[in-house]
Amino acid sequence: MCSRTGVQTFGNYFSFNTGHSQNSHSEHRCNQLINNEYVMIRQASDCCMYFCLCAQQIDEEVSKLLQLKAQLGGDEDKHTFVLKTAKGTRDYNPKQMAIREKVFDTIIRCFKRHGAETIDTPVFELKETLTGKYGEDSKLIYDLKDQGGELLSLRYDLTVPFARYLAMNKITNIKRYHIAKVYRRDNPAMTRGRYREFYQCDFDIAGQYDPMIPDAECLKIVHEILSELDLGDFRIKMSWEDVKNEMVNEKGLASEVADQIGEYVSMQGGKDMAEKLLQDPKLSQSKQACAGLADMKLLFSYLELFNVTDKVVFDLSLARGLDYYTGVICEAVLTQTTSAPATQERNGPAGEEGVSVGSVAGGGRYDGLVGMFDLKGRKVPCIGVSIGIERVFSIMEQKAEAEKIRTTETQVLVASAQKNLLEERLKLTAELWDAGIKAEVLYKKNPKLLSQLQHCEETGIPLVAILGEQEIKDGVVKLRTVATREEVDVSRAELVEEVKKRCQQL
Amino acid sequence: MCSRTGVQTFGNYFSFNTGHSQNSHSEHRCNQLINNEYVMIRQASDCCMYFCLCAQQIDEEVSKLLQLKAQLGGDEDKHTFVLKTAKGTRDYNPKQMAIREKVFDTIIRCFKRHGAETIDTPVFELKETLTGKYGEDSKLIYDLKDQGGELLSLRYDLTVPFARYLAMNKITNIKRYHIAKVYRRDNPAMTRGRYREFYQCDFDIAGQYDPMIPDAECLKIVHEILSELDLGDFRIKMSWEDVKNEMVNEKGLASEVADQIGEYVSMQGGKDMAEKLLQDPKLSQSKQACAGLADMKLLFSYLELFNVTDKVVFDLSLARGLDYYTGVICEAVLTQTTSAPATQERNGPAGEEGVSVGSVAGGGRYDGLVGMFDLKGRKVPCIGVSIGIERVFSIMEQKAEAEKIRTTETQVLVASAQKNLLEERLKLTAELWDAGIKAEVLYKKNPKLLSQLQHCEETGIPLVAILGEQEIKDGVVKLRTVATREEVDVSRAELVEEVKKRCQQL
Repeated sequence: MCSRTGVQTFGNYFSFNTGHSQNSHSEHRCNQLINNEYVMIRQASDCCMYFCLCAQQIDEEVSKLLQLKAQLGGDEDKHTFVLKTAKGTRDYNPKQMAIREKVFDTIIRCFKRHGAETIDTPVFELKETLTGKYGEDSKLIYDLKDQGGELLSLRYDLTVPFARYLAMNKITNIKRYHIAKVYRRDNPAMTRGRYREFYQCDFDIAGQYDPMIPDAECLKIVHEILSELDLGDFRIKMSWEDVKNEMVNEKGLASEVADQIGEYVSMQGGKDMAEKLLQDPKLSQSKQACAGLADMKLLFSYLELFNVTDKVVFDLSLARGLDYYTGVICEAVLTQTTSAPATQERNGPAGEEGVSVGSVAGGGRYDGLVGMFDLKGRKVPCIGVSIGIERVFSIMEQKAEAEKIRTTETQVLVASAQKNLLEERLKLTAELWDAGIKAEVLYKKNPKLLSQLQHCEETGIPLVAILGEQEIKDGVVKLRTVATREEVDVSRAELVEEVKKRCQQL
Repeated sequence: MCSRTGVQTFGNYFSFNTGHSQNSHSEHRCNQLINNEYVMIRQASDCCMYFCLCAQQIDEEVSKLLQLKAQLGGDEDKHTFVLKTAKGTRDYNPKQMAIREKVFDTIIRCFKRHGAETIDTPVFELKETLTGKYGEDSKLIYDLKDQGGELLSLRYDLTVPFARYLAMNKITNIKRYHIAKVYRRDNPAMTRGRYREFYQCDFDIAGQYDPMIPDAECLKIVHEILSELDLGDFRIKMSWEDVKNEMVNEKGLASEVADQIGEYVSMQGGKDMAEKLLQDPKLSQSKQACAGLADMKLLFSYLELFNVTDKVVFDLSLARGLDYYTGVICEAVLTQTTSAPATQERNGPAGEEGVSVGSVAGGGRYDGLVGMFDLKGRKVPCIGVSIGIERVFSIMEQKAEAEKIRTTETQVLVASAQKNLLEERLKLTAELWDAGIKAEVLYKKNPKLLSQLQHCEETGIPLVAILGEQEIKDGVVKLRTVATREEVDVSRAELVEEVKKRCQQL
């Protein structure tokens, strides 16, 4: 089978067929190629030493040649057959899926509690839709091969597709969430929850509203989700581009004031701090700064009404991250983490350790982005937050390593202790399915009772419906509770109700 | 620049993938490539410094300027700014998402009722993982651009990634479902539910079991789902590769017998038909055919126990579809459809009108596929079915065009008839959120009561909690039922319980 695959792969790949002798000949050439290739790249790399992507490039080129070699190889090369997922990606096994669904459920319940709708967009966009939105990070975008037709790229986040969606459908007001995978050709750190394919989990409010009200709700949502997920204590750090620019970047700001910033940054709570900054002689001369600080005061007054000021901190050291942010930006970090994996939340490129270590959520205002897609440049003010869900997964998965998590919801296994009762077992199982009961039956003619009970132990099925000649004659089923091992006869007519009743009690 | 070097050299290196028709020619190209590569890497390292610093920024600036030009440009430039999704793809708006989630819920409930786990795999796989699995249809696979590193392709279905997952993790027994998007560079027919990005909805049973039991459960599942989705009457057509080959393809089959096939095909029910075929003098001489027909009899006896024989038909005209199928294959079609959109279920390439028109589900046995990924060629017998969900969506969306479907679940809007009560509205809203109530508040300082009530009418919010000076003084809220317009004062302390109670009644 494998050699057939090998040759056919070769055929499809190089669009010519080859006999085995030629095949191994080409393989020999390929070996040389790998060696020569490696030497040359090494030479080149001496000159490229200082550039981050270089070493990675060499590895990737070699790994690609190994792939090629595997395809060229015949039977004797089975060992080079590459059986893996793409670099920086992973499969989710059933246990990981159970955790994933639990986390999503918590988050989606929160989004719906706040009256959000949901949308979905394609996994790839026209390349030009993503162009000029991510600055330096654009180099991390996955492009699709030009196979004729449009030039396409995999989405890098959910925010730019959302802005494209609003402009395309001329939507000026919406509160929506979007949970989907995004793609970044980044250096993966998978043990720390950083992947090339990863989920983003976005909540955004688009529309022209009175200042700081949607902003406050976004922070409330982050507060609710991080509290409900029970990840330990956290802080939500906030910064203002405009305030910060005035304070840090503009000339004419006395160095003493600049020094004060250090204190400001370390201060807790926001309102009192805004006051202090407003009293700053230099700062108060700047219209922009005053406006920003007034907004800040207003926001914090709303946050007090929402009971979330305990976790929110004004932090001028916060990096702006992605290009499209304007005005307020925020980032949430866990404060108790020991081994803090990097995550890829919306505020900040995946690559920037400094920004993303320990971070579990981020977001901000991007009032200009939708306008970039509108021919007349009409703006739609937007604010949104993104939960760094991969980080949450890896924390949850660590927690769950010990625990036994069910990956199915089966309520009852239909079993038998005697031979030649397959038909009876199938018949009863179908009765249960048709009554909406979650039921399983082993796909064997005559399974041992022990192996049927073991299946329940392994997968956590709480009940067993046991059929025997006698039970069939009497029109009953022996219903066994796996945990207690107690068995009672239940009439066939009452079985469904009995199973439902017991599962509610469990 | 290092990354560019990689991209360029491999661009060259693999440029002979797609062309040349002689092995010697390819070796000649290899030699050329080594030279090309050497030169390029020399050049690369020479100007590495310059490019690492500048190339990316230059590209970015140019594309930004082009973007800007497109936006600022007059009429003559507007047509250059494309605002659309990629060909053959679509966004899901909130109403479509509501329908989608309803359909998924029905299907997933069925899968869980049958004790299935779920897994997920990356949206792209190593190109070689997909190579040689789809025969002719391979030309429809989306490849990713070679940006250095592994050669990747978007998944074409969920079956090959599933087989790769099983082989990679040495899993020999699993019952799993997988709902995810797959990608085919096909001629889209979007009005008829055929897209380049579309959902597949797969249920598969892998493992060595007694014959026909898993096969019967797969058909039972298709029967349950199509019944619950209430799409009108349907038929599940089945065929056997081995039986068919014997009857149709093998020589030595008398033409009279071949003629009889016509009758056989038109026959309803399976068991009696299997009997008839077994009695056929020519056919009964073929071991393979007899084995196939015996399996068929066995399967139909299980289908009788599952009460699904009313819909199942043996149909020799059924096309085999994808390469990897072995033994039994099935396809479900709606029998009452007027405008039958084409769908892309698993059995049969999306392109084949003949196969896919009116089809809403398909699947079959693929006992050889996992072995293609195993170095020792170890086989894991598999059978699975796939629901043609896009087809179901378009039917549901047509049905829903008239209806008004809620896209949020908000239970109560916190409103006010008077000015300057924003703080009070926000405070109450937060109280409701914290109590788990789905609540909204308009993001305006002083919204009109009418506009607040209109928002409820438009989005289907059933209750309004109205605050006024008097209510605040009395510690009550005026709770209004939108439908009946009746209002009652409810004490603040009892509001949460009252809202919950009323929402249950609704």
